[in-house]
Amino acid sequence: MRPITHEKFEVLLKFLDEKQIDVLMICDFENCRNVNLQYISGLPAGGILLITKDGESFLIPWDFQLAKEYAEVDEIIDLSNFKYNYSLAIKELVENRWKKSSIIFGVHEIIPYGTIIKIKKNISQVKFFKDPIQITKILQELRATKSEYELNQLIKAAQIGSKTIKDIRKFCETATDDTEKDLSFLVRKKMAEYGADDVAFESLVANTTRSHELHCYPNATNQKFALQGLALIDFGAKFQGYCSDITVPISFRELSEEQRKMRDLVINSYEAAIEIIDIGVPLWKIHEEADQVLKKEGYNLPYPVGHGLGLTVHDSPIIASKPSDEYSLKNWKEELVQDGMVFTIEPGIYKQGLGGVRLENDVLIKNGKVEIITKSVYIKV
Amino acid sequence: MRPITHEKFEVLLKFLDEKQIDVLMICDFENCRNVNLQYISGLPAGGILLITKDGESFLIPWDFQLAKEYAEVDEIIDLSNFKYNYSLAIKELVENRWKKSSIIFGVHEIIPYGTIIKIKKNISQVKFFKDPIQITKILQELRATKSEYELNQLIKAAQIGSKTIKDIRKFCETATDDTEKDLSFLVRKKMAEYGADDVAFESLVANTTRSHELHCYPNATNQKFALQGLALIDFGAKFQGYCSDITVPISFRELSEEQRKMRDLVINSYEAAIEIIDIGVPLWKIHEEADQVLKKEGYNLPYPVGHGLGLTVHDSPIIASKPSDEYSLKNWKEELVQDGMVFTIEPGIYKQGLGGVRLENDVLIKNGKVEIITKSVYIKV
Repeated sequence: MRPITHEKFEVLLKFLDEKQIDVLMICDFENCRNVNLQYISGLPAGGILLITKDGESFLIPWDFQLAKEYAEVDEIIDLSNFKYNYSLAIKELVENRWKKSSIIFGVHEIIPYGTIIKIKKNISQVKFFKDPIQITKILQELRATKSEYELNQLIKAAQIGSKTIKDIRKFCETATDDTEKDLSFLVRKKMAEYGADDVAFESLVANTTRSHELHCYPNATNQKFALQGLALIDFGAKFQGYCSDITVPISFRELSEEQRKMRDLVINSYEAAIEIIDIGVPLWKIHEEADQVLKKEGYNLPYPVGHGLGLTVHDSPIIASKPSDEYSLKNWKEELVQDGMVFTIEPGIYKQGLGGVRLENDVLIKNGKVEIITKSVYIKV
Repeated sequence: MRPITHEKFEVLLKFLDEKQIDVLMICDFENCRNVNLQYISGLPAGGILLITKDGESFLIPWDFQLAKEYAEVDEIIDLSNFKYNYSLAIKELVENRWKKSSIIFGVHEIIPYGTIIKIKKNISQVKFFKDPIQITKILQELRATKSEYELNQLIKAAQIGSKTIKDIRKFCETATDDTEKDLSFLVRKKMAEYGADDVAFESLVANTTRSHELHCYPNATNQKFALQGLALIDFGAKFQGYCSDITVPISFRELSEEQRKMRDLVINSYEAAIEIIDIGVPLWKIHEEADQVLKKEGYNLPYPVGHGLGLTVHDSPIIASKPSDEYSLKNWKEELVQDGMVFTIEPGIYKQGLGGVRLENDVLIKNGKVEIITKSVYIKV
């Protein structure tokens, strides 16, 4: 089934009409992924979706059988009839189906430039809408609040992720020479057992020598995990395309005074942020609340305190500070907490030599209520 | 270190000069990967690389520290000085460093259209070279033959993959209710133990009910693997960015006469293809040789018999048939087997109800010699 609701699809059509876009084109290819294909058509991956401003939907999938099983569109076009050349399939639609001598395509920012060039070359009737960023934005806005169906998928992804926390605890309590990679595999395997289709992203597993890195590279190594100090694992489950995202902060044996302070501050910062989340609260205030707790003690939050979850692990909205410079303020719009939003709260402190602490859970807003749908807590071993 | 050799870098500069391109721009982003970033700069992922036609290289990485560790370029630009906005960093180069009132950027096909639009909007001096497909092609050509360093990386990836074949055999021999997913995890874990950084791609694990699918979806399920009939696993290791790709065909218990025939034909087809590989042989002849074995018995090969391996699992060259129609022939160029090429040979037969058989190994050409660098064989249980 396609996740987009009837109401949101109508909003999309209205947008196309207002912008005088004849056809919306969404491409998802192996090296250039775009989850809007799944969002609007139901097909998990691989193909080009065309939506006319009248609401007719044409899907040109890479895998015809897969599309027949998953897609919810008016017509599925068999690419094998066009030598697996997308331009030829689109040309056929423009010339023989829509019979257009001039037609405006709106495209998402995430489309390979090469695809644009090939269409321009092969289908002279096609012109492109000048501002693909507007297309990206409307789709982000639509996806920022989730339908009942999507909320259920996200809750399932969150539950699968949360179930592994007891396995992580057990691993930590019994770990001797076990490595970061061992923990990464354990979590992947357990999530699959609990019903995940895949990991939402390759888990970040960092012992105390690496936990100060915001995004450790590589994601996990053959180093021993249970070294004295501050460690963490950042992971998530994917369930039918929907993602969860959890960070469990862990400490092994004695911590120094500053390490203990970092840990306590992060927990306080997390709780302060959670505390003020409510329908109608500006998102930037949630960031500010978390950041203030750290700032008072001379630390700062080096990234936005949260991000949306959905068909991507970094979905809309973003829970960031209000921009302070004029350049950024010009393009900024205040967003409020709304029903249907699902996002992470994940403050952290990072200091080379001392390590890093991050506590992250997923928050869901439904019928005016704030629910924490994952169960990460600080683990002390 | 950067994989591109000095000689190939010079070929690239000559190309830029001939096409009157001032700057080559390569982008690799989270949702739009382009391994040419690693190929030319050494940085594994995340950023924009600019190469002037004089051979100066500027890297704007997402992660400055990572770039300092891995990249081999003339200058690394700190994106945090530009509010993490790539356009602003490039604008600074164009206006204050290169002091250009007009400059032509050559870009790869795999660049988000949104990036093009943003640069056009923010940096009026930049014009784009009209034919990004030419940029894609020259880079494909350069990457189609590998340096000594790259060959060694590919051999390592092949060895890691091959080592797991004994684990796969053991799994099959002892499997009872074990699932496709169990085998997928086993292979992932074993490859990591043997030194892989990651899987080259999510393993395709198909029991006899799914092995007729060319690219089974999902890649592995909770179905029992050892069902009577024809099964297969298609997997590979990633080692420092370089990929291997192996398919092991497996049969459980008795096969029907036609299943046995399919299996024997695929083995014969594989051997016929391997047999004729030699320096100077046209690639299409290798495909034809494999295909003929199947055609004689009324089957056909529904895809190109092989593809290159390198920083992507589908690298250049492609071992496909000679096109038969005029349209495709016009853009076709005969390619010959050359020193430095590494590619798969993977004939198969697929029939719903009977299952699929595919045998795949990786072939490397070095000093005029043909080496099979993986060790897949048919496993009978």
